[in-house]
Amino acid sequence: MTYNTPVNAIDYLLHHVVDLDEIKACPAYVDVNDDLISDILQGAAVFSKEVLAPTNWSGDQNHPELKGGNVIASPGFKQAYRSFVEAGWLGLAGPTEYGGMGLPQVLSVGVNEMLYSANMALGLCPMLTSSASNAILAHASDELKATYLEKMINGEWSGAMDLTEPQAGSDLGELRAKAVPNGDGTYALSGQKIYITWGDHDCADNIIHLVLARLPDAPAGSRGISLFLAPKYFVEPDGSLGKRNNFRPIGLEDKLGIHGSPTCVMEFDNATGWLVGPENKGLACMFTMMNEARLFVGVQGVAIGERAYQAALSYANDRVQGKVAGEAEKAPIIGHPDVRRMLMEMKAGLMGARAICMATAAAGDIAVSAEDEETRNSAHAREALLTPLAKAYGSDIGVEMASIGVQVHGGMGFVEETGAAQHYRDSRIAPIYEGTNGIQAIDLVGRKLRRDGGEAMQALIAELRDILAQVTELDDQAALELGSAVDNLGAGLEAMTTATNLILTADETDALASATAYLALCSDVVSGAFLIKGVVNGLKKQDPRAKSMQKLVWFHSVAFLSRAPSYLDQIKYGAGPVFGFDKELLADL
Amino acid sequence: MTYNTPVNAIDYLLHHVVDLDEIKACPAYVDVNDDLISDILQGAAVFSKEVLAPTNWSGDQNHPELKGGNVIASPGFKQAYRSFVEAGWLGLAGPTEYGGMGLPQVLSVGVNEMLYSANMALGLCPMLTSSASNAILAHASDELKATYLEKMINGEWSGAMDLTEPQAGSDLGELRAKAVPNGDGTYALSGQKIYITWGDHDCADNIIHLVLARLPDAPAGSRGISLFLAPKYFVEPDGSLGKRNNFRPIGLEDKLGIHGSPTCVMEFDNATGWLVGPENKGLACMFTMMNEARLFVGVQGVAIGERAYQAALSYANDRVQGKVAGEAEKAPIIGHPDVRRMLMEMKAGLMGARAICMATAAAGDIAVSAEDEETRNSAHAREALLTPLAKAYGSDIGVEMASIGVQVHGGMGFVEETGAAQHYRDSRIAPIYEGTNGIQAIDLVGRKLRRDGGEAMQALIAELRDILAQVTELDDQAALELGSAVDNLGAGLEAMTTATNLILTADETDALASATAYLALCSDVVSGAFLIKGVVNGLKKQDPRAKSMQKLVWFHSVAFLSRAPSYLDQIKYGAGPVFGFDKELLADL
Repeated sequence: MTYNTPVNAIDYLLHHVVDLDEIKACPAYVDVNDDLISDILQGAAVFSKEVLAPTNWSGDQNHPELKGGNVIASPGFKQAYRSFVEAGWLGLAGPTEYGGMGLPQVLSVGVNEMLYSANMALGLCPMLTSSASNAILAHASDELKATYLEKMINGEWSGAMDLTEPQAGSDLGELRAKAVPNGDGTYALSGQKIYITWGDHDCADNIIHLVLARLPDAPAGSRGISLFLAPKYFVEPDGSLGKRNNFRPIGLEDKLGIHGSPTCVMEFDNATGWLVGPENKGLACMFTMMNEARLFVGVQGVAIGERAYQAALSYANDRVQGKVAGEAEKAPIIGHPDVRRMLMEMKAGLMGARAICMATAAAGDIAVSAEDEETRNSAHAREALLTPLAKAYGSDIGVEMASIGVQVHGGMGFVEETGAAQHYRDSRIAPIYEGTNGIQAIDLVGRKLRRDGGEAMQALIAELRDILAQVTELDDQAALELGSAVDNLGAGLEAMTTATNLILTADETDALASATAYLALCSDVVSGAFLIKGVVNGLKKQDPRAKSMQKLVWFHSVAFLSRAPSYLDQIKYGAGPVFGFDKELLADL
Repeated sequence: MTYNTPVNAIDYLLHHVVDLDEIKACPAYVDVNDDLISDILQGAAVFSKEVLAPTNWSGDQNHPELKGGNVIASPGFKQAYRSFVEAGWLGLAGPTEYGGMGLPQVLSVGVNEMLYSANMALGLCPMLTSSASNAILAHASDELKATYLEKMINGEWSGAMDLTEPQAGSDLGELRAKAVPNGDGTYALSGQKIYITWGDHDCADNIIHLVLARLPDAPAGSRGISLFLAPKYFVEPDGSLGKRNNFRPIGLEDKLGIHGSPTCVMEFDNATGWLVGPENKGLACMFTMMNEARLFVGVQGVAIGERAYQAALSYANDRVQGKVAGEAEKAPIIGHPDVRRMLMEMKAGLMGARAICMATAAAGDIAVSAEDEETRNSAHAREALLTPLAKAYGSDIGVEMASIGVQVHGGMGFVEETGAAQHYRDSRIAPIYEGTNGIQAIDLVGRKLRRDGGEAMQALIAELRDILAQVTELDDQAALELGSAVDNLGAGLEAMTTATNLILTADETDALASATAYLALCSDVVSGAFLIKGVVNGLKKQDPRAKSMQKLVWFHSVAFLSRAPSYLDQIKYGAGPVFGFDKELLADL
């Protein structure tokens, strides 16, 4: 269960797909340079391989336990988490005024991919902490910020997000948890929350919960929800920890995967909380964090897929079985064309999804930090548009590749001790949480496409067309070697343009019924185009790795980019075939 | 975790896709009629729902145990198995001279789909028994047949297949187990076998193992392997059970899924065995069973997918979340277009794979039982050609649909207690065992396509073109409603023809590198064409269900059949993109 870190792959995309120069041009990032990037990626790689990766299997086999109102994390997790905090990985992209390093998110994506690959279940704890601290940073009072942020950003304290209730999952407007003013500026929170990731544990000294609840007489539905901060232990004026707050874990879910991550049922019984942001604006406050959280779930998909890929590659290099053409002796199965095809499918699919995730993060960095407002605005629209692709495509690719990883192992893949099965199980959560992938697709066609009349999408398509045009600037030989990729990108862009126009003019139900197909189509084209961009830029800058990328892009083109037009039929017919079959007959015929 | 049985769907395919009249015309099947079929399907449905299905979750949670050289099956399994035997389900397609009912395999496919849906882990026991008894029937001496067959065909005794060893998985030529003549016509078997499904248990009174091993001085590789029968308990001349043979389970695998099925490591220590078939022809004797076993693994894929579908459908009908267009109140999620789309994708994909499985079984029935030799021969070629599609497509669809089943459940799908996760785990074995799906693809392009110069495939393509032609015989309205399906079938057939010609003329490595894409392309087209055939025949025969099938075919056409041309690029470029990327750089870039 070794894990090789794809440092070069990440570094390549940073330099040739993401517009790193544009990020470096932001005043906040003037200190970012190639040496720093290289040092950080190498450091994260070593830490991931040596400290985190060895705890992954153990966490799967030894679940956290609930004992007397406290969750005890899986063996070895506390120490690994402490090492993580000491190494300073959590504050990488955190604000410098609270002790963070203030580095771009895109670098954090590269770093976190490796951390998640090494141990996704453990990696969720800092991910949740980061989301919670971002929400506090954006919406909480200066007093709350002063009390909590620094220790959350360095990881001494962790964070948790308490949103879901049994009747309120995708539809948070249904939630019932109550918040009653105590008269002293605090609120008494009561109710039950489920699916609270790292809701309790013994790795960090304190756990800061962000809780959605309703004030008395709040409007019904999603407009009556407020956001509260509730620490596990109260913080005394001197910063020391006081007595325990009135909420606790009352159950742990028995899950398909990410066993090392405690998923808690939390009971709030007049717990003390502080309001974050305005009354009844809790959902909006949460949603400002959503883009980032969704992006990082996409990164998790890539990460688990990559770990599964590395395991499959290692197995295929070792396992001798059957004769391979051109070899006299029996040889490792990597020589079998269909095994090699599976490995290439994993590698290429992951690289494409990784490119989307990194481009999304880069857009976010520019949206926050560019000097020029217009640049910030268009980057923000681009980030918003790419986020559902990053989340859904990244997480779907993760599941698909983890499944291929099992397949490469043959019978051994179905036996738990190999570890391939763990990746298959772990990966399955990513298409579900932080908004199911169906919700991502709806977000894409609704908020991101139709709401602005297609403006951001047309800008993206124009950019992709520009990539296609740049291929012709390459010398003949290089352009020739990109041949099939260029053809498929052309066809893909035609399909994407047609699909976009269809969705823009479709009625609501047709658009919603086509949403997943549209997201899949866009993802294949965007990832393919980004990878081609990477080859074009790499060749121009004479990066010696560009020739390998070109070979990878060839495979990506025939196996992924070429699929784009096949989604058109679903978009063309919309709701017709989806609702045509009589609902009452669905159980049989 | 209720399970609704798709009796109508199975019955429809039997009558309108499979050429049931051709089967009924075989002398062996003159007694087969619609009432009998209906009674058997209904009976299997009731048994599956009421007796088997309730044991499925329990078997997942309570693994079999190895105690003192004996495996104790999961709680409730022994009783369920006994009920299964008493109801006579095992001998459905078994030979009448040994107590079987002698019914066509195609009916057994319909019945077994429901049994596997209800409890796949338990269903593996009769499946293995059936494979073993078929091998005995085809190759063993009359004495062995007389001793073992009747009780295996009625299920009093079960069967197991002992093939794999740690170094010999896909490549059985590497196996090392030894068989030394005892001088009395029996052989002393020694060695270790792994992955022995239902290799030991307490459900049946005796377990009859078919074991591959090498005679002294046997040729190396696959030409030196012989097949032996070794019973767990010796059978006395009066038919009673004697002492135990010298082999036993020494370990159980901890697997991703099908937990209720004990996967044994078996140790043979001078166990007594009897030769089955000629010396050194063991592999060939095993391979005569292979088509049937592979078909039934495809059926398992459909079965698990169907169980996952029924669970998802039930959840989608119950779970209220969010507003649905056109409904004033909050409504069940089945009203959401993307949820309905997922359900339709499951239903249509499963119906397509089911059609391939049933057509494969029907070809097998005609291959065995038709009066005319030419008919038998062409049916045999058709069965051989369709088998890798049935196995690989059925099992891949199973995994894909079980994954969508988890997704429909949202967060609940990732929690084990829902049961959706069990289907996702259970389904994953089917693409692996009985020859990985990669091996199926190689079998398709090698043995089934290139070896006969494409003759069987051209016959299949001609048949599919004929289906397309028959659409024009429908009245205008019916043909119009099949519109997009007809277009996609035309395009699919073009792609399949092009792909077939490419593979026939490709060099070996290109053909092998394209094999999986070719199998996927053919599967989408063949399943689509078979479903269209079902509509055409159903409309002609005025089956009231034909209109619903037509709606399902519309969805299948836009979501599955339409994909066919997208695989062409992989077939066109063959090994180039697969082997283009430097092997040494696969771990990174």
